[in-house]
Amino acid sequence: MTGARCTVALDAMGGDAAPAEQVKGALLAAERGVRVLLVGDRKPLEAELARQGAPGGCAAEIVPSEGVVAEGENPVRALRANPRVSIAVAAGLVRDGRADALVSMGSTGAAMAASVLSLGTFEGLERPALGGPFIALAPGVSIIDLGSQVDCRPGQLVSFAALGAAFARAYQGVAEPRVGLLSVGGEQGKGNRLVQDAYPLLERSGLRFVGNVEGHEIFLDKADVVVCDGFTGNVLLKYTEGLAEAAGRYLARVLGADTEAVRAIRGMAAEAELAGGPLFGVNGGVVIGHGRSTAHHYANAIVRAAEVVEKGVVDAMRNEMAAVLAKTEAPE
Amino acid sequence: MTGARCTVALDAMGGDAAPAEQVKGALLAAERGVRVLLVGDRKPLEAELARQGAPGGCAAEIVPSEGVVAEGENPVRALRANPRVSIAVAAGLVRDGRADALVSMGSTGAAMAASVLSLGTFEGLERPALGGPFIALAPGVSIIDLGSQVDCRPGQLVSFAALGAAFARAYQGVAEPRVGLLSVGGEQGKGNRLVQDAYPLLERSGLRFVGNVEGHEIFLDKADVVVCDGFTGNVLLKYTEGLAEAAGRYLARVLGADTEAVRAIRGMAAEAELAGGPLFGVNGGVVIGHGRSTAHHYANAIVRAAEVVEKGVVDAMRNEMAAVLAKTEAPE
Repeated sequence: MTGARCTVALDAMGGDAAPAEQVKGALLAAERGVRVLLVGDRKPLEAELARQGAPGGCAAEIVPSEGVVAEGENPVRALRANPRVSIAVAAGLVRDGRADALVSMGSTGAAMAASVLSLGTFEGLERPALGGPFIALAPGVSIIDLGSQVDCRPGQLVSFAALGAAFARAYQGVAEPRVGLLSVGGEQGKGNRLVQDAYPLLERSGLRFVGNVEGHEIFLDKADVVVCDGFTGNVLLKYTEGLAEAAGRYLARVLGADTEAVRAIRGMAAEAELAGGPLFGVNGGVVIGHGRSTAHHYANAIVRAAEVVEKGVVDAMRNEMAAVLAKTEAPE
Repeated sequence: MTGARCTVALDAMGGDAAPAEQVKGALLAAERGVRVLLVGDRKPLEAELARQGAPGGCAAEIVPSEGVVAEGENPVRALRANPRVSIAVAAGLVRDGRADALVSMGSTGAAMAASVLSLGTFEGLERPALGGPFIALAPGVSIIDLGSQVDCRPGQLVSFAALGAAFARAYQGVAEPRVGLLSVGGEQGKGNRLVQDAYPLLERSGLRFVGNVEGHEIFLDKADVVVCDGFTGNVLLKYTEGLAEAAGRYLARVLGADTEAVRAIRGMAAEAELAGGPLFGVNGGVVIGHGRSTAHHYANAIVRAAEVVEKGVVDAMRNEMAAVLAKTEAPE
């Protein structure tokens, strides 16, 4: 599937345990046919490649940068203060055509800011959105937004719907993705003001809008894409992570062993999240993941980024969004 | 614990499978020392009592009403059209001092509307809130609001905090309840506008405010009370219900049997929810639950309502809210 010519820039300094897991993940991805550019401080990267028995330039090439944006730092300020920081250099590689896509498990805010600065967002979109499937028990359901836009206007939910539908079609191969609106009741009119105002826009969006989706219906195959404001989405994402951990601990106690079932329940959130999700709405393939990711998560994210490129997901999203905004006549 | 003299009015027509499970639950609660008034259509109630071998007037007394507000009906319109409907008569019994508290698993909207009309809300509160612990994996954590107020102003979150703290202290026996604000990041300043505006109010509320609580931290014993707008709370409630069901089905498949662990995982949401939660902010004890409840859930809800009365929870909530609103100077 993955073409040999696809090149992915990896922010090798972002995320926990950098750069060991990052380098290991890059080498695993290289074995799966992706060319990886390791962006980071040269010395530690060379040392790590040597330690793992892979001299630089062979399977994974080093592109030097200086420093890293730490979790919690103000992303825009950090990027301004140091334009040579790893995530900025990595995003620049995509901008300059030296890489086809970007992967980072470092500061989400920094990855978003660097992507926006280097690649730009789609016409009509203020900020990119975060989304994708993150619940192993509902693996086909993409939820958007997961935290980029905590205060939304109705038109933004429509943009999320277009981006998610294009992703489901182009990346996941769903022929006619069903789009649902996360709400607190089934009928139109149920929900907060935002949802009530977004409903009629989605009805005339040209998308296959299936109406409101309640919390439990995420698990009932009612929609392929569920849109919500980033506050609600982020709470759900982290809640699921916490619940999965707590359920795993509980089950391990009840069953008295760390069985496959326990690991599966514990992983019902974490795996998908750690594998990284796409950044929706920037002019380039960007996959962002969790700082706790380990080598195989990095490898999966890199392969995923390559697939985003190969399947033309970014163009599909841009076109879908333009078409939907033209129909709803609510450009932002 | 439960005093023999406490009287609870049960909406015996509300909820699925009425009145069979309702009557059975009432008889179970009566065995636990609570006097129950069965409010509903006389004939089916008499027939059901006879069928269960308990003649009316002995363990559970019938108070006749006419009809029921169906799920999905407009509550206020239904109550206006028929003031003799079961939930209206039941709430009237509490207003008139013939019952100490009210339990309904029927239409939530109707139970809220009838409670507000008959009992009134606390000074400074527009509408009551729904809340309480609903996650078996975080049994000590009350989340408020769960769907009553889908669009909130900052002052309403402060009211929820006061009501929840009083509930935790008076009902659950937590000496100094910690109050958290559900958000998407730990530091002040993270969150949507509502959360950002509520934060400083909570800081000067006199409550033991512990700051923002992220989704996963609900499971990390960071707060006893977590406040949020009713949209987010309702999505979480129903999401948990759906996730628990899906996780249970998944586990049953993996383990190949419907073991105790499977039932426990499946019940991690449902049990607490089915047992019913208090309605916060009305001048009387009201416990509301899920239509799918069965007899033992009814019994638990009735006993819970009796405990709300015996522990003086309503007065504690009213006093706490008045004190907090005086401090935050943001009466609504």
